[in-house]
Amino acid sequence: MPTVQLLLTGNELMSGDIVDSNSGMIARLLLEQGIPLERKITLGDNLKALSREIESISQHADILIVNGGLGPTSDDLTADALANAAGVKTTEHADALAQIAAWCKKRGFDLNEPNRKQARLPQDCEIIPNPVGSAPGFHLTLNHCLIICTPGVPGELKAMMNGTIIPLVTSRHSGQAPCRTQRFQVFGLGEATIQKLISGRLPDWPSDIQIGYRASLPFIDIKLTTASTIEAAQVTRWLDKAKAVLGHHVIGDSGAPLSEIVINQLRSQGIRLATAESCTGGLIASQLTRIAGASDVFDAGFVTYSNAMKSAMLGVKPETLDTHGAVSEEVVNEMAMGAIDISGADLAIAVSGIAGPSGGTDDKPVGTVWIAWGSARKLNSCQLYIPGHREFFQNIVTHISLDLIRRLLLDIDEPPQYFFDRSPKTDHQKE
Amino acid sequence: MPTVQLLLTGNELMSGDIVDSNSGMIARLLLEQGIPLERKITLGDNLKALSREIESISQHADILIVNGGLGPTSDDLTADALANAAGVKTTEHADALAQIAAWCKKRGFDLNEPNRKQARLPQDCEIIPNPVGSAPGFHLTLNHCLIICTPGVPGELKAMMNGTIIPLVTSRHSGQAPCRTQRFQVFGLGEATIQKLISGRLPDWPSDIQIGYRASLPFIDIKLTTASTIEAAQVTRWLDKAKAVLGHHVIGDSGAPLSEIVINQLRSQGIRLATAESCTGGLIASQLTRIAGASDVFDAGFVTYSNAMKSAMLGVKPETLDTHGAVSEEVVNEMAMGAIDISGADLAIAVSGIAGPSGGTDDKPVGTVWIAWGSARKLNSCQLYIPGHREFFQNIVTHISLDLIRRLLLDIDEPPQYFFDRSPKTDHQKE
Repeated sequence: MPTVQLLLTGNELMSGDIVDSNSGMIARLLLEQGIPLERKITLGDNLKALSREIESISQHADILIVNGGLGPTSDDLTADALANAAGVKTTEHADALAQIAAWCKKRGFDLNEPNRKQARLPQDCEIIPNPVGSAPGFHLTLNHCLIICTPGVPGELKAMMNGTIIPLVTSRHSGQAPCRTQRFQVFGLGEATIQKLISGRLPDWPSDIQIGYRASLPFIDIKLTTASTIEAAQVTRWLDKAKAVLGHHVIGDSGAPLSEIVINQLRSQGIRLATAESCTGGLIASQLTRIAGASDVFDAGFVTYSNAMKSAMLGVKPETLDTHGAVSEEVVNEMAMGAIDISGADLAIAVSGIAGPSGGTDDKPVGTVWIAWGSARKLNSCQLYIPGHREFFQNIVTHISLDLIRRLLLDIDEPPQYFFDRSPKTDHQKE
Repeated sequence: MPTVQLLLTGNELMSGDIVDSNSGMIARLLLEQGIPLERKITLGDNLKALSREIESISQHADILIVNGGLGPTSDDLTADALANAAGVKTTEHADALAQIAAWCKKRGFDLNEPNRKQARLPQDCEIIPNPVGSAPGFHLTLNHCLIICTPGVPGELKAMMNGTIIPLVTSRHSGQAPCRTQRFQVFGLGEATIQKLISGRLPDWPSDIQIGYRASLPFIDIKLTTASTIEAAQVTRWLDKAKAVLGHHVIGDSGAPLSEIVINQLRSQGIRLATAESCTGGLIASQLTRIAGASDVFDAGFVTYSNAMKSAMLGVKPETLDTHGAVSEEVVNEMAMGAIDISGADLAIAVSGIAGPSGGTDDKPVGTVWIAWGSARKLNSCQLYIPGHREFFQNIVTHISLDLIRRLLLDIDEPPQYFFDRSPKTDHQKE
C-alpha cells in the first residue's frame, strides 16, 4: 500500500477566498481504489516554500499529488517548484506544446506567450493528457517518490484523475485493494433520520461493514466500506437491507442527479414533461436541460413570475388569482393545466411559492409553496413549508418537484417523508 | 509579523466526506488583522502522526492553530498529541472542568465520563473559554511557538476566534498591519489575456503591488495586495490604471454575479427584461431569479426547446424555422420579438444554439449559438462559437447573454473581446 500525500497550491486557498473541493474529489477517487490519503499540505504561491515542501515530502511519501499552479500566469509556480526541488531545469516540452497548440487551434486561438509558458516543464518529466483543458499535467520521480502535478480547475482535474492518474497510482501498488466501497443516494431523508432508521431497524448490523454518510445537498450519499476479506455476497445482502429500510427515498446508486433519473425514466416510458414555474424561476427547466438529450422528453418551460404572466402565458384565470392568491392550490393546478394545454406534453409540474426574503404574510409565510404535478386526467397537488434562505428554498423545491415526477413515473404510492416533515400544518402548530 | 500555520485534524477531512470551511474562516479573520496564513496541514486521527507534526511545526512557526479533535470521543486526540509533542502528561484541568460542569448544569445534564475527558489537557496549558459549547480550547508554548487548540464545530470556533484567539495572536505581533487587499472582477477576458494586457500596457507596474488572478468560472477575480507602508492613493492609482486597461470587461468590485449587476441596473433604470431560451434551457431565467427582488424587473421567461414550442409559445413563424433553421439570426430575432410582444417587457434576450454533445452539423457545429438582444425598436444579434462540454457551453452562453444586457444598459458601444475570440468565422477558417 503506497503512502500518498497531497500538496495544494494557491493564495486563494490560503486566504479563504475559495473553499477547496479538489482534495475531497482526489481522496474519494483514491479511496475507491482502497488507497487512503495520508497527509494534505496547503501553501500559497511562494516558489521557495513550494520547492522546499516538494523536496521534503518526496523523502517520506511514495506518491505526491500536487494540485494547482499549472496555469499560464506568473503566480502559477508548480513546474518551477518541482524543477527546483529535483535540481533540474525547465524546458519547453514538445509533447506538451503540441497538446496546447492543438487545443488553441481547435478553439481558433493563437498560441501566445502565456500558453507557451504552460509547456515549460521540468526536464525529463512525462506529460499527462488533459482531455478538457489546455494545460497538460506531468509527473516525475524524485527520491523514489512519484510526483504528479495536476490542474486546479475541477473539471480538468477530474478528467485527468479518471483518465491517467488513477491507473498510474494503482499500478504502483500491487495486490488487492484493502477495502471496497459501495454507495447509493437518498433524497428526502436527513442524515440523522437515516442513521436512526438503520440503527433501529437493523440492530445486528455487522461491525466490519462501516457505513458513512455524506450530505451533498439536497442528497445524502451513503457509503458502505468493507475489508476485502469479507465476501461480496454478504456486503450486497446488507446493502439491500439498508436500501429496504430507506424504501423509495433511495433514488439510485450511480450518483446521477434527480434530473437525469427523471429524464431517463420519461424517455423509457415515452412521456413528455412541461414545467410551469413561479418561485423557482426556471431552475427546474435548467436542471432538466443540463442533461444531454433532454430534448427527447422536454420542450416547453414557462417562467411566470407575475400574476399577469400566469394569465398571459398559461391562461390562469384572473378570478382564480384574485380569489385564492398566486400561492394556492387552484393557481398551481391551472398553471399545470395551461402548460399541458399549450405544449401538448403528457405531464406537467407547476410551482408557486414565496422564496423570500420579502413577500411573506402571516397566512402564507416565506417558505410556503404549492406544487401541482400530473396529467390532464389526474393532477396531484401539495402544499409544503420550506423556510430558509432563498437559494436553499429554490433548490429544495426544484428537487422535490423532480422527485414527485420520479415517484409518479415509478407508480410509487407511499407518501415521501417530506410530506410530513415539511407539512405546513405541523409547522404552523409549532409556531 | 508572526508566521502562522494551521493544523486541521479529522478522518472526515482526509476522506473527502466533508469540505473544510473552518480554515477559510480562520484565514479571513487573521487577514483582517493583516496576518497571512503561511501553511496548512491536514491529518487524519492518528496520534503518532499528529504528535510528530505538532513538534515539527513548533520548530518553524511562531504560532500554530490546531483545529479539531477536542471532542469527547476516542478519535479526538488533540490534547494527547500536544502533550506528547511537548513531552508532558495530560491532567484534569480544574478551570476546564469548572467550565464544562457549568455548561452541563445550565442544560440540566449530568457531568459524565466523556465530558470529563474534555477536561484532561496537557500540563501547564491555559484554557480558552468556549462561549457556545462545552469543550474549552487551550494553548501552550513549545519551542517558542504559541500552539492554540480549537474546536472543529464552526460556531464554537468562530466565537473563540473572535473572543480570545484573535486578541491573543495580535498581541504577539506589534505594530501595523502588513498587507492590504483590493479586488475587482472581470468578465470576457481570459487570465492569460489579462496578464498580457497589464504587463504590456503597464510595463512600469510597481513591484511592491502584487497582482493575483483567480478564475472563478466564468469570472476572473483580480486582487492587488500591498504592504501597508505603501500609500493608499498610490494603490488606488494603479488599481484605476489596471481597470482602464481592461475597459468594459471590468464588471465591478463587489463580487456580485452578473445577474445581480443586471437586475440592479434594470431596476435603477425602470426597465423590464424577458428571456426566450432554447439551448440554455432556463438557466438565464434561473440566474436572474436567484437574486432577491428579481420580480421588480423580470416576470416572463420562455423555455422553447423545440421548433414547435418556438412557434406555439413565442410566435416564431414556421417558415422562418424551415428556411433558416432553429439556430439562426432570423429565429432568435423572432423569439426576442415574441417575448417582448407577449410579456410587454422593454427588453428581451433570446438564445438558440447547439449545446451538444449531439445535434451538430458541418455548417453549424456543436458550440454554435445565435443571440438576439434589445428592444422592439432596436434589436441586436450575434453569432458565437463556444465549443466545450454541454454545461460549460450553457454557463458561458448564459453569462454572455447577461453581459450583453449589462453593456446595452450601460450604453457601451465598444465590442467585447469575446466577439472576436468566439467568432464563428475565425474558427471555421482554422478547422
